[in-house]
Amino acid sequence: MTSSRTPDIAVILVATRNPLNIGAAARAVANFGWSDFRLVDPYDMAFREAVSAVGGAHVLAGARVFPTVAEAVADCSLVVGTTAAQRRTPEQVINRLEAGAVQIRGHQGRIALLFGSEKFGLSNEDMSYCHSLIRIPTAPDTPSMNLGQAVAVCLYELAREASDPRAARYEAVSGNDAEQLSTMMLEVLRESGYTNRITAVSTEQKIRRWIRRLRISRRDAPLLLGILRQILWKFQAR
Amino acid sequence: MTSSRTPDIAVILVATRNPLNIGAAARAVANFGWSDFRLVDPYDMAFREAVSAVGGAHVLAGARVFPTVAEAVADCSLVVGTTAAQRRTPEQVINRLEAGAVQIRGHQGRIALLFGSEKFGLSNEDMSYCHSLIRIPTAPDTPSMNLGQAVAVCLYELAREASDPRAARYEAVSGNDAEQLSTMMLEVLRESGYTNRITAVSTEQKIRRWIRRLRISRRDAPLLLGILRQILWKFQAR
Repeated sequence: MTSSRTPDIAVILVATRNPLNIGAAARAVANFGWSDFRLVDPYDMAFREAVSAVGGAHVLAGARVFPTVAEAVADCSLVVGTTAAQRRTPEQVINRLEAGAVQIRGHQGRIALLFGSEKFGLSNEDMSYCHSLIRIPTAPDTPSMNLGQAVAVCLYELAREASDPRAARYEAVSGNDAEQLSTMMLEVLRESGYTNRITAVSTEQKIRRWIRRLRISRRDAPLLLGILRQILWKFQAR
Repeated sequence: MTSSRTPDIAVILVATRNPLNIGAAARAVANFGWSDFRLVDPYDMAFREAVSAVGGAHVLAGARVFPTVAEAVADCSLVVGTTAAQRRTPEQVINRLEAGAVQIRGHQGRIALLFGSEKFGLSNEDMSYCHSLIRIPTAPDTPSMNLGQAVAVCLYELAREASDPRAARYEAVSGNDAEQLSTMMLEVLRESGYTNRITAVSTEQKIRRWIRRLRISRRDAPLLLGILRQILWKFQAR
């Protein structure tokens, strides 16, 4: 894989329980030529002793641990979550992996690829950091994959020879900027009295998802931030 | 997957050492909608107790054991071996998985997909039963995959949508809605005092372009309009 073709991917495992799965995921990262491997709040901090990373030892050794999803994705301008899409019906669009990969390959900037825990997958809170979701096209009667296998399949799809034309280039805001936009938007909603009208608990996640779904570009972020700042100033100048 | 499109595949593991890998392979077979699972001379006959077949238990329970490759592939009219293509230079052509999958999907009749042992892969003797060989396009410095992950990746490629997937559908707001959004946004900017700070003449066009560039979906438009309406209400309620 030449660097010009390869998307800049950080594989992020959230709340993984089994160190063997962390090892297997690290091996898949190495198998398909990537190296940026991150863990959010793993259950077992002894994960580096996992034995199934044969051939992926350098990836496992270089793994970075973060306490929260927000911190793990802070330097990523596209965050893509994975889901078996069984129980929940998230508000985000769920693309099949084939289509999701087209979006990921077309993206300029670092991409976070999020995998949830073996038992529960990504939580709604985790998903609220995602710009989009992908699902591996598994059989309806056995949809849930082993974590290490799911990581391998996603990375294979991203590394495989794609004959389809690249999706239009688009430079998205970083995770930090998206978070700043969300925070400021929430403040505007609170100050305007909008927040009280909708279920308070879900508002924050809803707005965070929405800001990401809007696909705000790096170029537009300062404009939107400026507008929000001005609205807040006006509210407070009363 | 419709039956007319799905190739009739028997996944065959040869001389597998680790029962966990057998369980993981069985799970992948189930995940991608197949069920014909065969083992040639496994090291541990207690493989059915493998725990990693969660969701693939029926595949594992139905596994058939054969003493030799010859017997395992006897009813298959195409035999395809998998290899990491490191040491040996077999006389057969080695296709990348993407190309090999095209051959497999085009075949009428049962197809054997052979995976060798974790440590040694397929032997030359095993390969002599193969019509062709495929390799997963792994990185040259870490070519060898975990067995369960390799099975998952091969079956994913065979199950994935053969034609290039259409980019995710996206229903944009109508021109009318975009115009309404622009108008209301301009009113918010005027009321907040933002408009005066930038060249007044170009603001309207700028905001109109920006609203369209944001790619607001039909679904998001009411949310954004509601927020703008609330902000305006708050301004005017002073």
